Amino acid sequence: MKQKYVIIVAGGNGLRMKATIPKQFLLLKGKPILMHTIEAFYRYDTDIHIILVLSEKQKTYWTSLCQQYNFKIDHHTIEGGITRFYSVKNGLFSVKKNCLVAVHDGVRPLVREKLIDNAFKMAQKALAVYPAIPITDSLREITNRNNRTVNRSEFYLVQTPQVFLSDILINAYEATSSDNFTDDISVVESGKICTPTMIKGSKSNIKITTPIDLSIAEALID
Amino acid sequence: MKQKYVIIVAGGNGLRMKATIPKQFLLLKGKPILMHTIEAFYRYDTDIHIILVLSEKQKTYWTSLCQQYNFKIDHHTIEGGITRFYSVKNGLFSVKKNCLVAVHDGVRPLVREKLIDNAFKMAQKALAVYPAIPITDSLREITNRNNRTVNRSEFYLVQTPQVFLSDILINAYEATSSDNFTDDISVVESGKICTPTMIKGSKSNIKITTPIDLSIAEALID
Repeated sequence: MKQKYVIIVAGGNGLRMKATIPKQFLLLKGKPILMHTIEAFYRYDTDIHIILVLSEKQKTYWTSLCQQYNFKIDHHTIEGGITRFYSVKNGLFSVKKNCLVAVHDGVRPLVREKLIDNAFKMAQKALAVYPAIPITDSLREITNRNNRTVNRSEFYLVQTPQVFLSDILINAYEATSSDNFTDDISVVESGKICTPTMIKGSKSNIKITTPIDLSIAEALID
Repeated sequence: MKQKYVIIVAGGNGLRMKATIPKQFLLLKGKPILMHTIEAFYRYDTDIHIILVLSEKQKTYWTSLCQQYNFKIDHHTIEGGITRFYSVKNGLFSVKKNCLVAVHDGVRPLVREKLIDNAFKMAQKALAVYPAIPITDSLREITNRNNRTVNRSEFYLVQTPQVFLSDILINAYEATSSDNFTDDISVVESGKICTPTMIKGSKSNIKITTPIDLSIAEALID
């Protein structure tokens, strides 16, 4: 397989958690969430290049956390931008061409090795890959024009890691002028470079954005 | 407030749980899920009329469970139909006009009294009410025509209890000829009787449809 990178995006400021420290630093089983996330990728492949994107202020805090928790997994910390888009873009400056690059939410610490492996393997062929899960609640669209139930079987909740041939993602980030994206397959699609391929995500691969999510993660972590 | 009913729909056969017993009977903190659900409404109002819809086969099993667990909360068990639509419709035969009626998923045992109360109170004015929560993952639409990321801020995950002036719901169920609905506000809307009002749902009000959900519920239950 080609050389592998993962860009872990952890720019959240914790507003939704009502916490004074950003959610990616909150403790899960006694250890900052972000350390679990990094460990997940390290367990998958000890040779993967781990790029962690943090704000300048958070970088200092992170360094002290790494000392406090004696966290030794090798990773490269770089400074984020004003939005998720610019954070990933900054991360991509450290990624070589003709490699495989995953982008992963720092607050998805429960991602399993199997899912990471599936995503990287598929990306070798498919160039752009994302995990997603079906929706079990009813789904409603509410806009200025519509206020209606939509067919939930036509919608999927998209997760990370999203994995790409690095050239694809680098080109997509260079080509677009908008920065209003919630994930990376959207950036690739905006450039009409290729159609991303969906793989099966996992309901346990939750994104920790509220205190309830943290309780759920505590329950689900091995 | 008007007289209150809740129709608890519990027709699932447990296919997604890979369990031999239907998911609504699986144990949560040592007690069948459905008993937690009934207790939630009883805690909210000891005078509420509780209508439980079960298949014929499940009714027998439920009776034995009630004996086994010494479950004493008064409720009326009626036989379900071949789809969720006909199960609710059967339940509505026991509901008087000019009352308030909630329809609730049997596999949402974690619903809080506060949410039930909000829904009933709002239904007095709004006639048709549903709880919903925003989406924190990216959202993708995949159909024959579309394969695209959609704006997640325009979509909501719809929960239960959905609460109605009983006349509204009874009329809606009588008026429609389709039975392909995933919830009750959709039935009301199909008849263009009124526009349902959204209230704030709760992320902890989960629908237990997979083994992971059961682990989550164990973590979240008080």
